[in-house]
Amino acid sequence: MRLRHKPWAREEMERNSHIVISEPENWLGKWQQLFGNDHPIFVEVGTGKGQFLTGMGKVHPNINFIGIEKYESVLVTAMERVREAEIENVKFINGDVEDLLSFFEENELSRLFINFTDPWPKNRHEKRRLTFHDFLERYEKVLKSDGEIHFKTDNQGLFEYSLHSFSKYGMTLNQISLDLHNSDIEGNIMTEYEEKFKAKNMRIYRCEAVFQNDKKGTDKL
Amino acid sequence: MRLRHKPWAREEMERNSHIVISEPENWLGKWQQLFGNDHPIFVEVGTGKGQFLTGMGKVHPNINFIGIEKYESVLVTAMERVREAEIENVKFINGDVEDLLSFFEENELSRLFINFTDPWPKNRHEKRRLTFHDFLERYEKVLKSDGEIHFKTDNQGLFEYSLHSFSKYGMTLNQISLDLHNSDIEGNIMTEYEEKFKAKNMRIYRCEAVFQNDKKGTDKL
Repeated sequence: MRLRHKPWAREEMERNSHIVISEPENWLGKWQQLFGNDHPIFVEVGTGKGQFLTGMGKVHPNINFIGIEKYESVLVTAMERVREAEIENVKFINGDVEDLLSFFEENELSRLFINFTDPWPKNRHEKRRLTFHDFLERYEKVLKSDGEIHFKTDNQGLFEYSLHSFSKYGMTLNQISLDLHNSDIEGNIMTEYEEKFKAKNMRIYRCEAVFQNDKKGTDKL
Repeated sequence: MRLRHKPWAREEMERNSHIVISEPENWLGKWQQLFGNDHPIFVEVGTGKGQFLTGMGKVHPNINFIGIEKYESVLVTAMERVREAEIENVKFINGDVEDLLSFFEENELSRLFINFTDPWPKNRHEKRRLTFHDFLERYEKVLKSDGEIHFKTDNQGLFEYSLHSFSKYGMTLNQISLDLHNSDIEGNIMTEYEEKFKAKNMRIYRCEAVFQNDKKGTDKL
């Protein structure tokens, strides 16, 4: 992602503190209060410029969305998008996914989105991948027991790694597509990256992963 | 697979009963005796014309290989290949994978290969796919606890389904490649189908799946 230094970004976000939530630690366990309803909470980690979350917010008014993004300079664009869309159900945290447990209480979330995250292809950087074991441990804590992780990427190596990592952790993989834009999976909202990759006719890989409770059951696809 | 009626096939197999084992049920739990050694046993289900297993047999003389194939008319070609290769470590069963438990005792096998199996794409045929839950149950029985399933296919839908099915069963996925012939996985022996697909530059999907004993452990790739 190209990062431009935007010295005014912080100020802008402070001016829009109803969208970019300052001191998110204070809302731990109380995010539904902040939204003023009891709707399920879906979180996107690494939300970038917010095209995905703004799109989702418009289509799903009965879901509360929170995007986590550490770079102010891109988050400010996401914030602008939400302001222009005039939607109340999308908020942002200017923070690091590493600190997920300081933002959310156990079982507070219903779904996590990981979209086009940095593949960190070198083996020695495995721990930085957002589908690494230690992140899955955090996700398991903040998600409800039937909560889902929805993952998509253009990066073949990251997808291969993530299938391994999810399954090694004991998760079940559902709704797998090895070519999302030539599949019959419906309701896909594209990220900025995804639009570019699609235009180049590149494959997008996608799956859902859930933490298993009942093992070895049969099921319907 | 194109099946030609070969009325002489049965007779040929009977004449080569040291390669195509008649009454395989009699060897249940005693296959190492038949091979005359204590080497691990690797089984290919749906072995077809035997190119893969013959190739493996040559490269790995310290492994006992058994191919299961229900169609006489293709198995007779596999048998010829092994005879011409003059190798002792590849045998065949003219039978159905459905009957796996009547051929092998619990924990008798170290590895199972499933190569380019029929995808049975219609939902109502799910039960016929060799990666369906009920087959995994059989595989788990005959495999040792650290036994592996090695799976490859050109069929995207079957691969997506199988990743779901393996993970749903609680298996860990290892050595995943979404494009085998452009990966750094070494020692691949090609099947007849695979050679054709490779010539057409089609993707081959591959993974290994193991039944999990310790859950949620970290590991090295």
